[in-house]
Amino acid sequence: MDNRTVGILGGGQLGRMIVEAASRLNVKTIILDAPNSPAKQINALTEHVDGSFSNPEDIEKIAAKCDVLTVEIEHVDVPTLQKVQKVHPKLEIYPSPETILLIQDKYLQKEHLIKNEIAVAESVAITEPSEHSLSQVGQKFGYPYMLKSRTLAYDGRGNFVVKSEASIPEALEVLKNRPLYAEKWAPFAKELAVMIVRSIKGNVYSYPTVETIHQDNICHLCYAPARVSDSIQLKAKLLAENAIKSFPGCGIFGVEMFYLENGELLINEIAPRPHNSGHFTIDACVTSQFEAHVRAILGLPLPRNFTSLSTSNTNAIMLNVLGDKSVKNKELQTCERALQTPGASVYLYGKESRPQRKMGHINIVSSSIEECERKLRFITGETDKPPCSSAVDDLETPIPGISKKPEIGIIMGSDSDLPVMSAACNILNHFEVPYEVTIVSAHRTPHRMSKYAIEASERGLKAIIAGAGGAAHLPGMVAAMTHLPVIGVPVKGSTLDGVDSLHSIVQMPRGIPVATVAINNSTNAALLAVRILGAYNPVYSGKMQEFLLKQEEEVLIKAKKLESLGYQSYLDGK
Amino acid sequence: MDNRTVGILGGGQLGRMIVEAASRLNVKTIILDAPNSPAKQINALTEHVDGSFSNPEDIEKIAAKCDVLTVEIEHVDVPTLQKVQKVHPKLEIYPSPETILLIQDKYLQKEHLIKNEIAVAESVAITEPSEHSLSQVGQKFGYPYMLKSRTLAYDGRGNFVVKSEASIPEALEVLKNRPLYAEKWAPFAKELAVMIVRSIKGNVYSYPTVETIHQDNICHLCYAPARVSDSIQLKAKLLAENAIKSFPGCGIFGVEMFYLENGELLINEIAPRPHNSGHFTIDACVTSQFEAHVRAILGLPLPRNFTSLSTSNTNAIMLNVLGDKSVKNKELQTCERALQTPGASVYLYGKESRPQRKMGHINIVSSSIEECERKLRFITGETDKPPCSSAVDDLETPIPGISKKPEIGIIMGSDSDLPVMSAACNILNHFEVPYEVTIVSAHRTPHRMSKYAIEASERGLKAIIAGAGGAAHLPGMVAAMTHLPVIGVPVKGSTLDGVDSLHSIVQMPRGIPVATVAINNSTNAALLAVRILGAYNPVYSGKMQEFLLKQEEEVLIKAKKLESLGYQSYLDGK
Repeated sequence: MDNRTVGILGGGQLGRMIVEAASRLNVKTIILDAPNSPAKQINALTEHVDGSFSNPEDIEKIAAKCDVLTVEIEHVDVPTLQKVQKVHPKLEIYPSPETILLIQDKYLQKEHLIKNEIAVAESVAITEPSEHSLSQVGQKFGYPYMLKSRTLAYDGRGNFVVKSEASIPEALEVLKNRPLYAEKWAPFAKELAVMIVRSIKGNVYSYPTVETIHQDNICHLCYAPARVSDSIQLKAKLLAENAIKSFPGCGIFGVEMFYLENGELLINEIAPRPHNSGHFTIDACVTSQFEAHVRAILGLPLPRNFTSLSTSNTNAIMLNVLGDKSVKNKELQTCERALQTPGASVYLYGKESRPQRKMGHINIVSSSIEECERKLRFITGETDKPPCSSAVDDLETPIPGISKKPEIGIIMGSDSDLPVMSAACNILNHFEVPYEVTIVSAHRTPHRMSKYAIEASERGLKAIIAGAGGAAHLPGMVAAMTHLPVIGVPVKGSTLDGVDSLHSIVQMPRGIPVATVAINNSTNAALLAVRILGAYNPVYSGKMQEFLLKQEEEVLIKAKKLESLGYQSYLDGK
Repeated sequence: MDNRTVGILGGGQLGRMIVEAASRLNVKTIILDAPNSPAKQINALTEHVDGSFSNPEDIEKIAAKCDVLTVEIEHVDVPTLQKVQKVHPKLEIYPSPETILLIQDKYLQKEHLIKNEIAVAESVAITEPSEHSLSQVGQKFGYPYMLKSRTLAYDGRGNFVVKSEASIPEALEVLKNRPLYAEKWAPFAKELAVMIVRSIKGNVYSYPTVETIHQDNICHLCYAPARVSDSIQLKAKLLAENAIKSFPGCGIFGVEMFYLENGELLINEIAPRPHNSGHFTIDACVTSQFEAHVRAILGLPLPRNFTSLSTSNTNAIMLNVLGDKSVKNKELQTCERALQTPGASVYLYGKESRPQRKMGHINIVSSSIEECERKLRFITGETDKPPCSSAVDDLETPIPGISKKPEIGIIMGSDSDLPVMSAACNILNHFEVPYEVTIVSAHRTPHRMSKYAIEASERGLKAIIAGAGGAAHLPGMVAAMTHLPVIGVPVKGSTLDGVDSLHSIVQMPRGIPVATVAINNSTNAALLAVRILGAYNPVYSGKMQEFLLKQEEEVLIKAKKLESLGYQSYLDGK
């Protein structure tokens, strides 16, 4: 696809997976790292450079041998990169040295993001580390707060949680001789991450928002997509995209962020390279983060949506495989269990096992995140029930009716509406549509209503039927808090013949529609719901066609009877 | 996972992809083939053997260097394999030499299958090829029939279609000096294939049944799953499993079969190795045919269902990339188009381009086979509309950007309704929903109305928006003749403030619902339509969420302004 040679500073697992992706496109790669490093093991085509990505001479050596230079790690010698750029004006370096410089010093990174109005945790540089200066930070931020090395920090190394005034001396000892900054504690509910691809033109493309779970400050699990609401996934995506738009150069970027208990999103840190939180893309997306990087730095096509999950119901969990703390290679037992698990895929990096070293990762892919979790529990040894017997793997299509998951939610403002709304239940029973029915009052349980509306789509509901009377606010309010179609049933009250309810439901302002049916006609509300499902699900549209035919026949039979009997005896007959 | 070294006879693309799968498991491989062959290019760990898999000395060389020996091609020197087996009793050879022997002579293969009661096309050995013997076959089988070389036949080489008595001399010329057999013509409707994994214990696991389409006797396309009924897919799977159960040894097998017009299934031929019709497994399954082979021959776990498609709605098409017949490397243009296609993945084999040579393949994966086909049409150049602009690539819906197929139909009783209904068009434009808009009058064009309503769902419409005024019958009448959801917009007339239209539309009898929105509010009708699409299509629901967020922000901005300015100057400002 491209005759240029890509040089990679660093030949660890990230470099290895970049090489794998490049080889599939017949793209030549050359690695700078120790002999026999993981990336070199799978590339016999070129003569690699033995040495270190932090050694100027070695960087100059590889620069002379390639057309495009990239990195698998940000802790590279940037001044040398800037120098070789001058020596080899034709050489393209991605990510740009300028960007690496901004990112490899985490405090510069923070200042850059703040300058670009990207939300980050409050932090302060520590010019002279001392008990005094750190206790001042304690007074400013309160305890605990994070003390971090500005440079060469990764997988928790270079971070210290200052729990109280008393732990300051230990903090100074642990991080001595390092350039430091302090960061206000972010009380996060979850950690999210988004992989962003930046094209040479500066367009950004984002992979699905994922959720990462750390152990001992090292990434342990990654859930794709993240187990948060669609709107939070979307917010995270936009935050990450805006952050990466602010950096020059191109390639793949990992953006880690905190999802705070108050719903806020703060960027934690950015990596200008493939990232652990993007390993799921190898199996869950058609184009992996590694191929995306290769395509970006070579200016190969990056079509819209090429970063999507493979299918509309792809779910994945990535599990890191770390060197066992006590017994060498014991971690392979986890891999063995993964091989016993259908839908799980093992990636080992060709490294010698050392405690806590990243030896490989395992991707689990399935049609549902619950299924992924079942498999994960077996792989981690939490359960010994092998998930192989799972029926989910066999099903080509979910069977409506069998599924426990409700597709339609029926809600009403009060149990007094039930006699009217029960007709909707009968219809959904008849069509074997899985549904749920409950009471949600706009005026008496406003928070319950919000929760119901906001969670509806996450729970798999495809439409909501809401019945209400009088100043009927339930359908409109629910419609305001979900993107699902909401069907409103005006329930006739003791006065005004239900015209009050009808107008309260149907006369919604521009922007928030409610699909309103006739007064007291919850039958039609349910039939409309079935039509909505039927628009995509042939099983339901088939049943709806039968239903319409049957209705027609019934009328024709009556017509025949009327014609044969004559109107008088027809009436008498009744 | 396993410290043994796997030797591979043959280093072409199949060997290359076996090596890739093995490396991911830290399994060492060593290749026997010409220097720098595709498989060797991606393995720098071991010193490979230069030579040929048909040369005894070379086979002995590699046998001395590995613990398990396998093949990527069946045309290997079996007597030597049997000899080295004696020399190295500890060496495991899979597939077993016995199996290779049975399979590499296609006539022995057929006899073996017949002996095991596996359905195959009737065939007869031709001991003395002559015009006489071949015309006798013609009398026996009728014309056309297949004349095949028993050995060294692949990708159509070694096959000749004897169309009539007259073509016998040419047949003899083309296949002279080859051991021959004749096969009765199988009038097939489709060609199917199943990849089977056989464990050392003899258990068999099958990948989904696929459909292959050949050009010039070379595999061109592979549809996964095959476009045949579930029962045929199952029959094919069982036939293939039974066939492979009859061969000793383990590893992956490709089973090609004919699906005859009369519904019968006949096995065409079997390959004791990874197969072109299994390349889709790299992207459509979590465990590829290549990893399955490595795991089988090393006795690593093969859990139930590990050969399933990644998710319940995974669909895939594999397209082979052959060296262009006239212009060297021109085939790369196809790969370039694949890179422009979201959900398509390119695999190049590191070979020099030659006419009709297998240079690589392209996997297309999506939630629906129709979507895969749309992408295929772009990649092959059949259409020039890139599917990249699609916002719904991974969904079982047409692509708004490129698809001609409207998803929403907007109709109105009269052009006087257009000023009101045009707002709906604006919304659908904003959400990039493909739609159509026209005039259909219930009272003046009743037949046109019926036709429109009846054909709507067949044409792919997912919902209909109908606007009408006065005695507004259009929405209800259309709803009566389609199973699709119909959204009614009451258009305000010169009298009665539109309450007449509202009641005519909303007060439908039980059985025929119309989703009614506010008077003149076609904006909400369109937004409701988008919600209906969004119930199944995350892209539309995502956009709807953005839309709702934006609405929210707009109000909050105005609120801020009002709070800061005070109500009076806010009013004056307006």
